[in-house]
Amino acid sequence: MAANVQNVIMLVGDSLTQRGWEPGGFALLLAERYVRKLDVINRGLAGYQTDWAIPVCEQIFAKQHEQHQVPKVNLLTIWYGANDAAPAPNTRHVPRDRYKANLCHLIQMVKLPTSAYYSPETRIILITPPPVNTKQWGKPESPRVFETTRSYAEAVKEVGEKENVPVADIWTQIFDGAGRSEEGCKRYLIDGLHLNSDGYNIVFNAIVDIVERVYPELDTTESQYGVKMQNVFVPWDQVDLQNPRPSLLVRRKSRM
Amino acid sequence: MAANVQNVIMLVGDSLTQRGWEPGGFALLLAERYVRKLDVINRGLAGYQTDWAIPVCEQIFAKQHEQHQVPKVNLLTIWYGANDAAPAPNTRHVPRDRYKANLCHLIQMVKLPTSAYYSPETRIILITPPPVNTKQWGKPESPRVFETTRSYAEAVKEVGEKENVPVADIWTQIFDGAGRSEEGCKRYLIDGLHLNSDGYNIVFNAIVDIVERVYPELDTTESQYGVKMQNVFVPWDQVDLQNPRPSLLVRRKSRM
Repeated sequence: MAANVQNVIMLVGDSLTQRGWEPGGFALLLAERYVRKLDVINRGLAGYQTDWAIPVCEQIFAKQHEQHQVPKVNLLTIWYGANDAAPAPNTRHVPRDRYKANLCHLIQMVKLPTSAYYSPETRIILITPPPVNTKQWGKPESPRVFETTRSYAEAVKEVGEKENVPVADIWTQIFDGAGRSEEGCKRYLIDGLHLNSDGYNIVFNAIVDIVERVYPELDTTESQYGVKMQNVFVPWDQVDLQNPRPSLLVRRKSRM
Repeated sequence: MAANVQNVIMLVGDSLTQRGWEPGGFALLLAERYVRKLDVINRGLAGYQTDWAIPVCEQIFAKQHEQHQVPKVNLLTIWYGANDAAPAPNTRHVPRDRYKANLCHLIQMVKLPTSAYYSPETRIILITPPPVNTKQWGKPESPRVFETTRSYAEAVKEVGEKENVPVADIWTQIFDGAGRSEEGCKRYLIDGLHLNSDGYNIVFNAIVDIVERVYPELDTTESQYGVKMQNVFVPWDQVDLQNPRPSLLVRRKSRM
């Protein structure tokens, strides 16, 4: 019985997204920033890769005929690759070409007017997997290779170029922050693969930066365009004290 | 275009709820605990009191005829009083009797079978306002009185008794933790009124404790009843590798 009063930010991905609610995670930084404007829906599924993401997204994206009755997704982040890049024979391995094709498929589900899931008001941001620090990674049964993950991060940028979708290239930002050394990446990683709060801070800032530059209609601060998103419900000091009810029934469009 | 795949926890209240996404806040602790099971929807509105909550809740609770198409609210927290208890002539003051009547009204919107918002699957938890530390509170233009807020916290317990709704009595837990001294409460308060992460931790633990004792069907851990909530989408190591798609299309009921 949660009525549809706020649009949402939807986060799809693997464990890096699922853990976004942990202390310092990017989901909670977004939730704090967009409180009273957009709800944050975390659809991160640990261990998943892009082959498996497609049937999942067929269920978590609403079809066109359902869209009038569910929250609009104003911002969608797509963040896979950490498992796709696990080399064969890992059961979760997805070859690089198919990984790219799968990412294109997910984007086209939303952006293609002929798609059952077409949603023209949804802004998309692709996120690259972070670098792995194989010296720090303690699961020899599920190995990762530094250069392979780098190549999957490059693949995301190729998809972004092809599909005209902005990319939060956190692989490069983290590697640069680590002095361009694999071992230096431990500054941003808990276990060689998953991010700590410094790593998530890079992700959050990369998203905010893209919003400001590419999607200013989703900016929460006064931007160069002179607009910012409003709170859906009226601020308490603007409630009409003589006749509160009408002012409390106004639901402002959070996106101007 | 966010399809309806997870039920939700809805948090209604004032700034104490709105700030629940801040570091250490109870909203993010709940979101982390219930990831892949229930989404957390924060409907905290800073500065609001129970007179104003009623028209807001008429919009954020779905009516019966809409409920088949929106997420079910499995858990609803109702947390007002910090502004209601501001003494007159503060424009936000709500007299104690009307505060109690308003809380009863909000509960009956959900629990009364004749209500347009009737939602039998919604479990409700009332939360008391925390103690104020008037020595720490730095807004003389909006004064608070220690004994008045205490009396509003008592009012919540009276409402809980009358309506048979469990109460997270964080007023008492914080006051006890502070050695039963007003000034000692600063250990849990940022500014004499709003909670720090230690204060929010008490709120979170009080909710978890009520869930375990009163609403075990919402427990995420193995309880004495031997049940726990499941993730909606299948864990990655249970995906059928020979034929992944059918296993990925199963959406388990998160509540057993």
